[in-house]
Amino acid sequence: MTKQELFENIKRKKSFLCVGLDTDVNKIPEHLFDAEDPIFEFNKAIIDATADLCVAYKPNLAFYESLGLEGWEVLERTVDYIRENYPDQFIIADAKRGDIGNTSAMYARTFFGNMEFDSVTVAPYMGEDSVTPFLTYEGKWVTLLALTSNKGALDFQFMRDAEGELLFQKVLKTSAKWGTDENMMFVVGATKAEMLTDVRAIVPEHFLLVPKYGMNSSCGLLVNSSRQIIYAASDATYATAAREEAQLVQAEMEEILREAKLV
Amino acid sequence: MTKQELFENIKRKKSFLCVGLDTDVNKIPEHLFDAEDPIFEFNKAIIDATADLCVAYKPNLAFYESLGLEGWEVLERTVDYIRENYPDQFIIADAKRGDIGNTSAMYARTFFGNMEFDSVTVAPYMGEDSVTPFLTYEGKWVTLLALTSNKGALDFQFMRDAEGELLFQKVLKTSAKWGTDENMMFVVGATKAEMLTDVRAIVPEHFLLVPKYGMNSSCGLLVNSSRQIIYAASDATYATAAREEAQLVQAEMEEILREAKLV
Repeated sequence: MTKQELFENIKRKKSFLCVGLDTDVNKIPEHLFDAEDPIFEFNKAIIDATADLCVAYKPNLAFYESLGLEGWEVLERTVDYIRENYPDQFIIADAKRGDIGNTSAMYARTFFGNMEFDSVTVAPYMGEDSVTPFLTYEGKWVTLLALTSNKGALDFQFMRDAEGELLFQKVLKTSAKWGTDENMMFVVGATKAEMLTDVRAIVPEHFLLVPKYGMNSSCGLLVNSSRQIIYAASDATYATAAREEAQLVQAEMEEILREAKLV
Repeated sequence: MTKQELFENIKRKKSFLCVGLDTDVNKIPEHLFDAEDPIFEFNKAIIDATADLCVAYKPNLAFYESLGLEGWEVLERTVDYIRENYPDQFIIADAKRGDIGNTSAMYARTFFGNMEFDSVTVAPYMGEDSVTPFLTYEGKWVTLLALTSNKGALDFQFMRDAEGELLFQKVLKTSAKWGTDENMMFVVGATKAEMLTDVRAIVPEHFLLVPKYGMNSSCGLLVNSSRQIIYAASDATYATAAREEAQLVQAEMEEILREAKLV
């Protein structure tokens, strides 16, 4: 998907919501266990209930891998289901990969060749040759970790060099040269608006996967929500509840997009 | 496996070799494609030919994932085969994982609960809560990336703070407090002996997964070799050739261990 196509989808749907499919077998409604493939049924119902309200889905690989072969099968079925029924969705493999060149190339083949993801999250620690193999697929994107929103982000991402530059800023600045705003976006879990201002000074045109703030002229944001949406209810009403939650978020986003005169 | 058990295995086998099972379907001998499961057959033969010469195996997850469901099945079979036939081997999942707490916990369950790995490689970028979930399994280890040996290591790992400390040194110093030398080891792809001296000043007692140098009083090293061993020959003699290559490395290691008076 091109950046322009993604922006067109955002304007049409008046939403920049990304629904995180962190599907936990211990958290899905009990009645689903009557189905042949409970996790796929859960994903399918969540997707059907939210597809017109969001522009992206982000399966979290850990949740699927932890189920072994069955989990990989559900993951593949889920991606195929989205591709076939909602081809305008941007699908991010939240896999946090990154390794030496030939190994990253293997991961890229997994997510972009074997499966039809649009993007994969990549960790920057091993540098350029660990990231660039993911950039060789036309129309596919790297979603690179820059600033994460967990407590451990403080351990290394705010390391400051003698010139006052922080590690996550160096990651943004350095890695922005490896690709373009057409094939790279960044995870920026900034919890304060002014942090996003700093980030926008380094990467004004890139898309960011964020909690909030930092819009640019082509929106430039995907806001992810996982548990808040997919576990909005734990009973048979889960899909309707997920839809209602997604509607609330979408309405907020529509307002923000209108204020920014983007829709 | 405890650190003491690992050291005992090293002394008994006079080797601290780790064989990297980066098994590439495009690189295995052609005659294996007559077998029902060529990749497993390849791994099995390599393992049988080298198990008395090494103390660890390290399957590279990317190579298995890139084969989809079949790849995961081969990975599971390979780990089971090592466990059943060579229970003294230390098995490292070279997966470079690392995510927020609940997600890292899922990955830990995959590698330590569902599969019987002894350790998994973890990337440090997301900090403490991305690593500690892997440390909650008795007898299991984190192999944390500190200094990698690829060219991209120069991009961020050598970032220097105002006090002159480099990022990989900060990673070693900070993360060493999250666990102990009984449940953490570090990837240190140092290409110069003096770099290992610096590393040993920070983590004197920990095991290191390295190209070479930096022994301590319980050896404290695992030296990985992947392609040099498993692709020593590309014809039907591949297992014998792998064994011969492993023997050469083991003989060198025995000499080094003797010089250090550890055997």
